[in-house]
Amino acid sequence: MRIATLGPEGTFSHEAVLKYDNEAEIIFKYTIWDVFDAVKNNEVDKGIVPLENSVSGTIGLTLDSLMHFGLKIIKEIIIPVKHNLAGNSKINELKFLYSHPQTFAQCEKFIRDKLNEIEFIPTSSNAVSAEKLSKAKRKGAGAIVPNPAMKKYKLKCLARDIQDNRFNVTRFAVIDMECAKKTGNDRTSISIYPHMDKPGLLYQLIGEFARRKINLTKIESRPSKGRLGDYIFFIDLQGHKDDKEVKAALKAIEKNFFIQILGSYPREY
Amino acid sequence: MRIATLGPEGTFSHEAVLKYDNEAEIIFKYTIWDVFDAVKNNEVDKGIVPLENSVSGTIGLTLDSLMHFGLKIIKEIIIPVKHNLAGNSKINELKFLYSHPQTFAQCEKFIRDKLNEIEFIPTSSNAVSAEKLSKAKRKGAGAIVPNPAMKKYKLKCLARDIQDNRFNVTRFAVIDMECAKKTGNDRTSISIYPHMDKPGLLYQLIGEFARRKINLTKIESRPSKGRLGDYIFFIDLQGHKDDKEVKAALKAIEKNFFIQILGSYPREY
Repeated sequence: MRIATLGPEGTFSHEAVLKYDNEAEIIFKYTIWDVFDAVKNNEVDKGIVPLENSVSGTIGLTLDSLMHFGLKIIKEIIIPVKHNLAGNSKINELKFLYSHPQTFAQCEKFIRDKLNEIEFIPTSSNAVSAEKLSKAKRKGAGAIVPNPAMKKYKLKCLARDIQDNRFNVTRFAVIDMECAKKTGNDRTSISIYPHMDKPGLLYQLIGEFARRKINLTKIESRPSKGRLGDYIFFIDLQGHKDDKEVKAALKAIEKNFFIQILGSYPREY
Repeated sequence: MRIATLGPEGTFSHEAVLKYDNEAEIIFKYTIWDVFDAVKNNEVDKGIVPLENSVSGTIGLTLDSLMHFGLKIIKEIIIPVKHNLAGNSKINELKFLYSHPQTFAQCEKFIRDKLNEIEFIPTSSNAVSAEKLSKAKRKGAGAIVPNPAMKKYKLKCLARDIQDNRFNVTRFAVIDMECAKKTGNDRTSISIYPHMDKPGLLYQLIGEFARRKINLTKIESRPSKGRLGDYIFFIDLQGHKDDKEVKAALKAIEKNFFIQILGSYPREY
């Protein structure tokens, strides 16, 4: 199987692909958009993209791409986000630090407490941080690097699990042309946009699910990119789009909302 | 007045401060956490931090800091996100491009269409991109830069408004010790965490607002950072925490939820 994901080698996206299918041929792309494009154009069989991080929140570009390309989530993959401090000197002798800015933000507290006055050198990915450290000639070089890239570049670990949040996880989505089949333990992701702005619409919408005992696992309003204050709702619910109760709820909602099904897929938690 | 915000000079945060008070003494900090810290410790009078971008979504670190420090939003400031392509060669002769990774993501379509095979050099801020371009010796250097930094570094503009989305805006929050007074046209931001996991709780919660004709302008569930699938809700509603109906709704909700008021402030849209 050919799978497109965000490169380069050694990123969490790479780890997600290996967890899904460790024999796949992996095609690394530079952007989320390019991953979708590759699936849509049959350059690959599937794509794997980040959907949500428990600390930094939803990845908007993935939601935008799902809506734009009309592709479906067929599986979710949960990857714990664990960062390490690697370096070519002792911790208290580090002078500069390679890090992706988002990774840096996820380790802020550790950096604040342990690495005073260090120069931060931003990189475009965690894998690039690892590569730069491995080639650093000057002493005092450090980098924040996840496990797969630590191994690949044989880096010296100065501190393990330095992310500020023990429960930091990223939820990835496997993307394909059609939704996955029912398994009896599924999740469905939808986007919803009201036909008109009417008070109480959201209440009514959630009522259609509550009445049918359909549990919502995520709800998020995001600017529709029209005028300010105009929102699209993104909802994750328990159940498959072909389940009787889910079908009935979506049918009831259709009266007041444009619905796009972003995927039905087996639940991982 | 002394105001802390994200540096360096020439960022959108800087622009937000100038829009709020163009005579303030500005203290630039490196992280959102440091801005909150400065307000909490009376090093400054106020802080200004990004809260939400219409394309990339909520800034999780700001919500986390609001909850951690117990400080309040006293005003929202809307800043349009406009990026320009600057460079020291013609567009079709650019060889490398300085850009903050998030800025790069916001101009993906333009880059894909117009700048084939260009080398992307990530920077830690838009202001740094501008500075690096201004010092570039080699021809073929480009940078993605917002208006304030274009001026400051006297850069040559190759293309204006290259962001993929015309409606790209960032909502900033002014942070202080206490909520703002009622103006009659206010918004209130709250975080809500259920006492227990019970189906239908969210429906009931939204009902308390709907019944009182309180309009919710934003609703978002975010992982609580405990176990997976455990969520905190962030809600923006129209009205001030001291409004009679808002008070009554919050009181009713308190039976089932821990509520934290993140701020009541004048609405800007």
